[in-house]
Amino acid sequence: MVDKALFSYLEEFVTPVRRQKFIDILNKRTKHFTVVLEDVYQMHNTSAVIRSCDVFGVQQAHAIEVQHKNTLDKEIAMGAQKWVDLQYHSNTETCIGVLKEKGYQIIATTPHNDSCLVEDFDVTKKSALFFGSEKNGVSEDVMKQADGFIKIPMVGFTESLNISVSAAIILQSVTSKLRNSTIDWQLTEEEKEFQRFIWMQKSIKSIDKILARYYEQNPK
Amino acid sequence: MVDKALFSYLEEFVTPVRRQKFIDILNKRTKHFTVVLEDVYQMHNTSAVIRSCDVFGVQQAHAIEVQHKNTLDKEIAMGAQKWVDLQYHSNTETCIGVLKEKGYQIIATTPHNDSCLVEDFDVTKKSALFFGSEKNGVSEDVMKQADGFIKIPMVGFTESLNISVSAAIILQSVTSKLRNSTIDWQLTEEEKEFQRFIWMQKSIKSIDKILARYYEQNPK
Repeated sequence: MVDKALFSYLEEFVTPVRRQKFIDILNKRTKHFTVVLEDVYQMHNTSAVIRSCDVFGVQQAHAIEVQHKNTLDKEIAMGAQKWVDLQYHSNTETCIGVLKEKGYQIIATTPHNDSCLVEDFDVTKKSALFFGSEKNGVSEDVMKQADGFIKIPMVGFTESLNISVSAAIILQSVTSKLRNSTIDWQLTEEEKEFQRFIWMQKSIKSIDKILARYYEQNPK
Repeated sequence: MVDKALFSYLEEFVTPVRRQKFIDILNKRTKHFTVVLEDVYQMHNTSAVIRSCDVFGVQQAHAIEVQHKNTLDKEIAMGAQKWVDLQYHSNTETCIGVLKEKGYQIIATTPHNDSCLVEDFDVTKKSALFFGSEKNGVSEDVMKQADGFIKIPMVGFTESLNISVSAAIILQSVTSKLRNSTIDWQLTEEEKEFQRFIWMQKSIKSIDKILARYYEQNPK
């Protein structure tokens, strides 16, 4: 829940143009799709995929990692990653559990079987799109538990695409289809308000000092 | 024109599986679309775009460069670039002239004006898709002479995509639409045969020695 008084207080530190931008962008954000990265150790790819999430309006992403969390966090905090929620999971099993709980079907992106072509993908269901490593693709765990598969048709000698390129193509395709559909894909008003609250805090320089002053004046 | 006798001679050095692969891939190749790279100095991007051309069946690409040709050639020769024709032009003007001569309309990819969205792009006409530099986009020359514009809808904070990602999204989208259309997009039988001839030569180890021996036995 958003603290309404604090929300109003913080708004004063954000320009009206910026505040409007948050509203406009949030009107195009969705949680109908989410992205899961199994191979988060390739930082360059992770950053690029998160950038695509922002560009195509996907608000939440998931990363599976067993160790090195601190190393990642530092880099992930830069750039577009500020605007997309990235949740960490210690293993694939846990991640799939959390996503199923939230009503997502598990979709493995893979060029290696009779997958559904990206342009034919049925966007009606909430879907978590899993991307594996460039070398080995998604893990066995994901392949076994997948509710569906999706692939990009490839007709040349090259048999694989860079993860960041695959993710961008798939996200662009499915989000564009989603926006042209009658599916209820938008965030709820409550989710939008919460996100504005978070984004405002991320946008304000010296937010720590400002929050400290607020709580000094308004003890909890 | 292909030297039929030499063609048959070379075929013996290529496995039947490989020969069939050439035929299969050539059945999906097109010259209906071509790609033009204005900023070839970012080698990483150029390679990635050429890789996408191969993956999505675009046989010809163009690069505009004023200098440094030798530096480029060496790197370009590696990988997927082997299977895509890359033609160099010394400036944008010349390149546009050559393409118009061949019946291509000039399409600038740009996020900066009221471009046509990639999913709405009319694929019926032969189109040369121009990609500029990541920083400044396509040049003024291209913007002025363009017959049309194309853009990827973006709804987040990030206002640009990496060139290799943009090119992949656009190529995937337009080639997929093309393949599902009734447009005559395939290479002619003559073009396919010529390309097989070229690919065979690129696939054969010690091709120079083999050609030398052939011409020794069959003087021109």
